[in-house]
Amino acid sequence: MLKKVLLFGFAGLAVLAVGILIGHFGIEQDNSPKWLRELSHDVDENFIKNFIAEVDNMKIQENLRELTKVPHMATTAGDEATVEFMLKRWQDKDTGLDAAWREDYRVYLSFPKSDTPNTVTVVNATDDVLYAAREKEKPYGPDQEDPAVVQPYAAYGPAGHARGKLVYANQGKVSDYELLNRTLDLSGTIAIVKYGGAGRGAKAINAAPFGVIGVLVYTDPYDINEGLMSDENETYPHSWYLPPSGVERGSYTTDFGDPLTPYLAAKQDTYRIPEEDINGVPPIPIQPIGFEDAQALICQLGGSAAPDDWQGSFPCTYNFGGPGFSSASSFSNSDVKLDVYNAGELRDSANVMGVIWGSVEPDRYVMYGNHRDSWVHGAIDPSSGTAVMLEITRILGQMVKAGKWRPRRTIIFGSWGAEEFGLIGSAEYTEEYISKLSQRTVAYINVDISVFANATLRASASPIAQNVIFAASKQVQAAGSTSVSVYDNWIKYFNRSSPTYGLIPNVGYLTGAGSDYASFIHYLGITSMDISYTYDRSKTRARIYPAYHTAYDTFDYASKFIDPGFTSHQTVARTAGNVLLRLADSLLLPFNCSDYAESLEEYLSRTVENFEELLKAHGISTEPLKEAVKSFRTAAASLDRVIHSSDLLNETPLKARRINDQLMLLDRAFLDPLAFPNKYGFRHVIWASRSSGVSTFPGLADAVEKAQTTGLKEDWDQAHRHLSIVTQAISGAAHTLTEVHA
Amino acid sequence: MLKKVLLFGFAGLAVLAVGILIGHFGIEQDNSPKWLRELSHDVDENFIKNFIAEVDNMKIQENLRELTKVPHMATTAGDEATVEFMLKRWQDKDTGLDAAWREDYRVYLSFPKSDTPNTVTVVNATDDVLYAAREKEKPYGPDQEDPAVVQPYAAYGPAGHARGKLVYANQGKVSDYELLNRTLDLSGTIAIVKYGGAGRGAKAINAAPFGVIGVLVYTDPYDINEGLMSDENETYPHSWYLPPSGVERGSYTTDFGDPLTPYLAAKQDTYRIPEEDINGVPPIPIQPIGFEDAQALICQLGGSAAPDDWQGSFPCTYNFGGPGFSSASSFSNSDVKLDVYNAGELRDSANVMGVIWGSVEPDRYVMYGNHRDSWVHGAIDPSSGTAVMLEITRILGQMVKAGKWRPRRTIIFGSWGAEEFGLIGSAEYTEEYISKLSQRTVAYINVDISVFANATLRASASPIAQNVIFAASKQVQAAGSTSVSVYDNWIKYFNRSSPTYGLIPNVGYLTGAGSDYASFIHYLGITSMDISYTYDRSKTRARIYPAYHTAYDTFDYASKFIDPGFTSHQTVARTAGNVLLRLADSLLLPFNCSDYAESLEEYLSRTVENFEELLKAHGISTEPLKEAVKSFRTAAASLDRVIHSSDLLNETPLKARRINDQLMLLDRAFLDPLAFPNKYGFRHVIWASRSSGVSTFPGLADAVEKAQTTGLKEDWDQAHRHLSIVTQAISGAAHTLTEVHA
Repeated sequence: MLKKVLLFGFAGLAVLAVGILIGHFGIEQDNSPKWLRELSHDVDENFIKNFIAEVDNMKIQENLRELTKVPHMATTAGDEATVEFMLKRWQDKDTGLDAAWREDYRVYLSFPKSDTPNTVTVVNATDDVLYAAREKEKPYGPDQEDPAVVQPYAAYGPAGHARGKLVYANQGKVSDYELLNRTLDLSGTIAIVKYGGAGRGAKAINAAPFGVIGVLVYTDPYDINEGLMSDENETYPHSWYLPPSGVERGSYTTDFGDPLTPYLAAKQDTYRIPEEDINGVPPIPIQPIGFEDAQALICQLGGSAAPDDWQGSFPCTYNFGGPGFSSASSFSNSDVKLDVYNAGELRDSANVMGVIWGSVEPDRYVMYGNHRDSWVHGAIDPSSGTAVMLEITRILGQMVKAGKWRPRRTIIFGSWGAEEFGLIGSAEYTEEYISKLSQRTVAYINVDISVFANATLRASASPIAQNVIFAASKQVQAAGSTSVSVYDNWIKYFNRSSPTYGLIPNVGYLTGAGSDYASFIHYLGITSMDISYTYDRSKTRARIYPAYHTAYDTFDYASKFIDPGFTSHQTVARTAGNVLLRLADSLLLPFNCSDYAESLEEYLSRTVENFEELLKAHGISTEPLKEAVKSFRTAAASLDRVIHSSDLLNETPLKARRINDQLMLLDRAFLDPLAFPNKYGFRHVIWASRSSGVSTFPGLADAVEKAQTTGLKEDWDQAHRHLSIVTQAISGAAHTLTEVHA
Repeated sequence: MLKKVLLFGFAGLAVLAVGILIGHFGIEQDNSPKWLRELSHDVDENFIKNFIAEVDNMKIQENLRELTKVPHMATTAGDEATVEFMLKRWQDKDTGLDAAWREDYRVYLSFPKSDTPNTVTVVNATDDVLYAAREKEKPYGPDQEDPAVVQPYAAYGPAGHARGKLVYANQGKVSDYELLNRTLDLSGTIAIVKYGGAGRGAKAINAAPFGVIGVLVYTDPYDINEGLMSDENETYPHSWYLPPSGVERGSYTTDFGDPLTPYLAAKQDTYRIPEEDINGVPPIPIQPIGFEDAQALICQLGGSAAPDDWQGSFPCTYNFGGPGFSSASSFSNSDVKLDVYNAGELRDSANVMGVIWGSVEPDRYVMYGNHRDSWVHGAIDPSSGTAVMLEITRILGQMVKAGKWRPRRTIIFGSWGAEEFGLIGSAEYTEEYISKLSQRTVAYINVDISVFANATLRASASPIAQNVIFAASKQVQAAGSTSVSVYDNWIKYFNRSSPTYGLIPNVGYLTGAGSDYASFIHYLGITSMDISYTYDRSKTRARIYPAYHTAYDTFDYASKFIDPGFTSHQTVARTAGNVLLRLADSLLLPFNCSDYAESLEEYLSRTVENFEELLKAHGISTEPLKEAVKSFRTAAASLDRVIHSSDLLNETPLKARRINDQLMLLDRAFLDPLAFPNKYGFRHVIWASRSSGVSTFPGLADAVEKAQTTGLKEDWDQAHRHLSIVTQAISGAAHTLTEVHA
């Protein structure tokens, strides 16, 4: 009996033990709260593969066809139609986002008068018109005949009437006018200049101090068409080249954001500065014209021959002008007359916003944006980007609506208005939501023109984002290839030798304000990227795709000459979408702060090479800057060590959040609102715009170059001040990366 | 057999089930990872009770005795001794903090010359000295005899020699000089003025445009001593009143932070502006004197009698001055001569920093600070605060060293240097670590002078912090009481009627820059508070405790007349320490954003009352401001709802973090670096300093008042601009509180 009892007892204990083990381990997973499982939400490689497979080139083509039916210049009826199209798509019950809405700002735009076109004429002493430039581009099909095609003009160029002798001023740089001014009296003249070399508005701003009273701008066939000029068989509709009457429109402001409400969101009742106080606009009338008209004028100019590097593709010698036309010309003694009727207007411009809420960290935003407004049909600029964005949102929206997926972080899409007038929609948005966006935004991805050409990916970004762009581009096949990745293709076209990695694709720096990333990176210090497909630079010297900002940038043009089959669009959608998903879904943000150290070290070495001796001669030491960069490298390495020694899935979720906050806020640490009082929109002391040719810390480079020119003590003081500003910013950023004790 | 087998089987199943139940529920607690349990780390009321019980008044007294052994003006040997004392205490192995260290800045201070004292004399036409003011305060004991007692002087007042007829200019306000100027030619005169009414430096800055060439400053017995003047039996050492020779020293700058490195941390090689470019310092020599000397001068003045409200406690009529002395006076026709030898010097000033690392959220900082430097012995200013801080760190350090406690968040203590010269140590610290502090700091608690007097608590704070100060003050007994709480005592002395709560203690607003909270709240937008014990205002009209900034602010003075028994010190330590612990340990930050809405509504109502009609008459609508305040109220209510409907202990820890981030960053949302370009240290658009008497949004109030005075269109434009700035800031803050979708 005892034996039996014992047996029963042992067996019972064994069964009990098995039960305990089952209870403890077998049911464990069901026992943990749902949020605990969700915390480990990480990027799902299968989901990304499916996303890539889902991206449909034909759907992108259809998006583009829809978006480019009519011209959709900011605030016009065509623009409103695209607002409604975006809303329809983003509010679709099967493929839309969680929410989508419009946000309007009352902004100051500039338009030509529809009933009184701007004119450029040659007039003789008795006011006979000897020549009149085209007022509209030549139609090759119904697109150009659309009455909504706006006359080519220089937005924000003042209305006015100028009449004077013509001179040829190359690209309208200060040095160009200086050269002319050595031998000619420019006062009362009209200058004709080429696009390139200087910003649009700068061509007039530079001219005025020399007495120039009006400016004409054109695109030389040398710079855009490889010299080709005939629309009989060479230019569009026969190729992607610019027809003789094609004119690049554009904004002629140097600042960005609504010109009347700097740093305030342009609401109905917001304080507006007087129009005469607008900064950075041309002080004299200016008008862009086609190269056929430019040829008619330039080839008649008198005076000495311009230097070789001022010459272009016209079959004549480009002379300076007498000033004025050659005595041998039928225009001899005649003036050029410029009549501009542009006027400013307050108009309501809409951003369309869409959102997919995050599941685990809804208060962290990954943003993706593209502007919606064009100058004319804007098939490439910007609708190639909008078509891509809509394909990305279709796929993600479908997954969300089907309940199959929700990102870890919130994704916000922005379809910006009035970008062409100076990044206005995105700038007003960042001004209105500056606090919320600064606190919560992980990154901003900008895809404006998605496809310039079919050769290769091009990306510019904050260095911390290089990592995620590389990861995404390695996973996507290059356009037209089934065996070469975007990354491997890219490295053939743009590359650099990294001290850390060896040969890698060269990710550009976001030092300008060329698209809507500007407010995000420069004003808010949000890690930004700008992504597109582009040229093989060895095969063309075109400044940009030739139909840029003209009436020829149409669906016909895009589908025949830029991306037949839309596979480059597809590749950009796959790559940018992949970047977006990695940023939105990764447990640990796919950022690498040590890559930032490499960029700072590169800038430092340029400073040392170019400026160290000069600074030393003026008693200014670069040692603190060197120490700051070193401390940044050390701090970045320490954060890397924390990351690599962590098991984030099994440690407190606040650890991943803490590290992610350090990564998210790194670019913010480089902001200094006092660095550039004259260009306050630029507050990021590393990536602010720069006039110096030395690719290094912009405030320092510009200040040193100015001090070298003037030799003034106060200018060397400014160089010292900028050295201290950038040193403090880098040290401060390093402090944010230094390991947080736990 | 079957029965037995069945029995065995059933029994086995039952045992197995018991085992499963034990395994599943019985071991559950041990199964969860340690971090999961730590996440719920919340404030422990027993720990707080123990802390309160531990605060020892006698230990505070001993701290004070130690701190005040010798004068410890910034950067002197006495200051260095306090640096070492702080480090010794904070690095103590049993009662110290996790770490403590010093951080030095190279700052520009201003001192009198020790070998050539500043002098104030009366000289006749033949240069005979008829009267000489005291150069040092009269000794009543060894403290005043210490050779390290600095001569009374006006720091940052320029060196210089002024000789001229004396006039009496009341408090040195612009209106005071204007009144004098109606009947007198002030050019070449020396003005004697009382402390009060205008800032120290302003008394000279206001004077210079009227031609005044030198200024004397004194404290009228009416304003500090209830009129008492005799050191035979009335003033210190017989009471807390100011002896006749006592002189308030002080900084005469209007800005704060190191004067040579605005907005840059003052490191060795930091760019320094030229001394002549320092902003906000007196343009003419200025010197403070005792009231016995002031009486000797004022009572001899000629000219008409000054208005009643310019009179003080001297037994004579205060005349304007002829200019100069009365013809009946022995000083008739004599000048006052002012010889100032102050000089600026670059000196190394130390902050002493100490830290207790947080266990759950080490990357969230609760800061507590107090300056260390004094003008002389500084028993009250600032050592009463240092003595309190050291008692708090002793108790917390002991708990940490014993392994009994570690806060949820990191606690950082700051012992600031060179506060007396313009909040320099704290300002340089915030400049150096601006990014890290902005990203991580939950709150800054400032306790400078901890005890002005024994009557009641006084607190100024961002409205969001009212809640935690109330909670702490309800839990501590008022000094000298065992039955009345600090809160119940406080409400008797300072109270207001809150629309939400009814009668509550009145927490002041931090609109000035009176102590080291300035850089935190105004420059970084970090929620700040300033806490002390103070007067029964119905019982004294003293501007401040009478020995303020004099050689009589000693341990003897503090222990005899300010807080015998040190129970008020103890009460402040308990209350401020309790606030600190609640901020550091609470799972959910003890902030209430709806209290901020109440303050904004109060400001709005003052704007409506005082300015709405005026603005409307100039075409400026206050509607957007009203809507912004309304949207803030709605957003605050929505966050409150989220908080109240949450079960934070059982939801994802990222939810508490998200809400805490919203609360932590609320004050940050009110920063606008463009709001006040002329006082850039003030970036918080709600609490910035204000000259207008209307207690409302400072930029708006000052701009409207200016526009009213000048009537200029451009000034009304500025009023509109400030309306838009504050509207955008409030709307932006509201956006940060709006519920984050999940």
